[in-house]
Amino acid sequence: MKIKPLSDRVVIEPSEAEEVTQGGIILPDTAKEKPLMGKITAVGEGKTLKNGENAEMSVKVGDLVAFGRFAGTDFKVDGKEYKIMHETDILGVIE
Amino acid sequence: MKIKPLSDRVVIEPSEAEEVTQGGIILPDTAKEKPLMGKITAVGEGKTLKNGENAEMSVKVGDLVAFGRFAGTDFKVDGKEYKIMHETDILGVIE
Amino acid sequence: MKIKPLSDRVVIEPSEAEEVTQGGIILPDTAKEKPLMGKITAVGEGKTLKNGENAEMSVKVGDLVAFGRFAGTDFKVDGKEYKIMHETDILGVIE
Amino acid sequence: MKIKPLSDRVVIEPSEAEEVTQGGIILPDTAKEKPLMGKITAVGEGKTLKNGENAEMSVKVGDLVAFGRFAGTDFKVDGKEYKIMHETDILGVIE
Amino acid sequence: MKIKPLSDRVVIEPSEAEEVTQGGIILPDTAKEKPLMGKITAVGEGKTLKNGENAEMSVKVGDLVAFGRFAGTDFKVDGKEYKIMHETDILGVIE
Amino acid sequence: MKIKPLSDRVVIEPSEAEEVTQGGIILPDTAKEKPLMGKITAVGEGKTLKNGENAEMSVKVGDLVAFGRFAGTDFKVDGKEYKIMHETDILGVIE
Amino acid sequence: MKIKPLSDRVVIEPSEAEEVTQGGIILPDTAKEKPLMGKITAVGEGKTLKNGENAEMSVKVGDLVAFGRFAGTDFKVDGKEYKIMHETDILGVIE
Repeated sequence: MKIKPLSDRVVIEPSEAEEVTQGGIILPDTAKEKPLMGKITAVGEGKTLKNGENAEMSVKVGDLVAFGRFAGTDFKVDGKEYKIMHETDILGVIE
Repeated sequence: MKIKPLSDRVVIEPSEAEEVTQGGIILPDTAKEKPLMGKITAVGEGKTLKNGENAEMSVKVGDLVAFGRFAGTDFKVDGKEYKIMHETDILGVIE
Repeated sequence: MKIKPLSDRVVIEPSEAEEVTQGGIILPDTAKEKPLMGKITAVGEGKTLKNGENAEMSVKVGDLVAFGRFAGTDFKVDGKEYKIMHETDILGVIE
Repeated sequence: MKIKPLSDRVVIEPSEAEEVTQGGIILPDTAKEKPLMGKITAVGEGKTLKNGENAEMSVKVGDLVAFGRFAGTDFKVDGKEYKIMHETDILGVIE
Repeated sequence: MKIKPLSDRVVIEPSEAEEVTQGGIILPDTAKEKPLMGKITAVGEGKTLKNGENAEMSVKVGDLVAFGRFAGTDFKVDGKEYKIMHETDILGVIE
Repeated sequence: MKIKPLSDRVVIEPSEAEEVTQGGIILPDTAKEKPLMGKITAVGEGKTLKNGENAEMSVKVGDLVAFGRFAGTDFKVDGKEYKIMHETDILGVIE
Repeated sequence: MKIKPLSDRVVIEPSEAEEVTQGGIILPDTAKEKPLMGKITAVGEGKTLKNGENAEMSVKVGDLVAFGRFAGTDFKVDGKEYKIMHETDILGVIE
């Protein structure tokens, strides 16, 4: 059971806070309550352009990405937490 | 008696909160007062484009969808609760 | 004596709250102070497009429509209450 | 001495509140402090379009129109009160 | 020493409040603290359009214009007060 | 060491408040805390248009300009204060 | 391990406050808590235009840039602080 995001949205499985700290990247906006990196598990088909085609997405499933503290909406599938957010809320891809 | 939504709106029959919890998806934004998944029971004809045609809808009747806690307007038909919201307020389709 | 709405506005004669409850549709946003369905009694010529033509209206005189609690402006003609609102404030057509 | 409104603005001579009540139309937004109907006494040349031409005005001098309580700016000429507002603030033409 | 306004701005020499009252036009928005008519003393070259040309200004030097109470920025040259504002803040030309 | 402004920004060396008062121009918005005229010391290449070209700047290095009290960002180079602001925040050129 | 910024974002390694003061540039907006200059360490591919191409970036890796006090999001890689921000938040390039 999974969510297929609409438009330019992506589903992200956030990394555990501990794992992040060891991996060496933290986005210390104001507090350290929630992980701010995660792996993309699903991508939408892209925003519909005025000519009816879809804009190409610039991230893909499997990408490890960084995002702002307040980006997206949280949800749970089978007890596991996910985030769903617009591609424009992704700051960058971690390489 | 039913509502035919205008423009890019859809009518959604929200799932019962219990059923949702068992199905395994919850969108735990701030509190668990209302179900946040539902089945689409009617779709509009799509937003009118500048050339006068309608944009294609990306969801259809029967789709099970997830939406944010504050999306749409509630209404009742024959004692049953529904929501009417813009397609852009739908986060994704549950498969 | 009547009002011919400008642009994409419509004039709506709201249904009595009692009648609505019996008809089976209520939009219980926050309170039940005012009816939220009504019959369209006049429609404008549609929004002027950039090419100078008018966009087609998607509702017509006689349609029974649902609208949000805070949509439109109230006015009285000969002691009878009406609402005037933009077509985009109409949620759907009741069939 | 008179004002020639710029762009898509119109000058309106508001009807007296008493006269309005007898005519049978009131827009009872929140209170009955000010008349909400009036006769158009001057119209601008229309909004300048991107191609340099002016959009056609959909009201003309002499039209009796209804407008919202907070529309436009009041001014006096020779002790008589007028309102100047954008055409889009006019709800409809009273016939 | 004078200011050449940029884009679609104009420089206005506000009329004295007394003179205005005698001339018969007042814009009594909320209080009568400042004059709301004035003579245009300089006009910009017009807003730059997308094709690189300038939009034509619809007022000219010497025009007596009315404007809203909070329009524009005040400045002094040689002890005399002026206002600089966008053309769109001018309500109309007084004839 | 100097700043080359990006897009449609300009760098301005504000005039001393005393000098301004003697020159005869003051913009007395609310208080007289800061000079509101200055000389342009650097200009950007202009805003990028949709066709990829840069819009032409309408001010140039050396121009004495007036600007609103809250326009731009202050910075210091070698103990001297400058402002960096968008061209649209410049009210006019002083001649 | 590094971040590849998406769209028109850049990654900036902020200069130490001390170093900045000696270099002679400070942006003293309200307080002197954080450095406001930095070196660009990564640039995105540019904003996607309506024709599907990417807009050219006007800064490049290695550029020393100035930015406003509240621009961008902070993050740490291996204990070192970085900022990620949109190109439009960069005030200018320091030469």
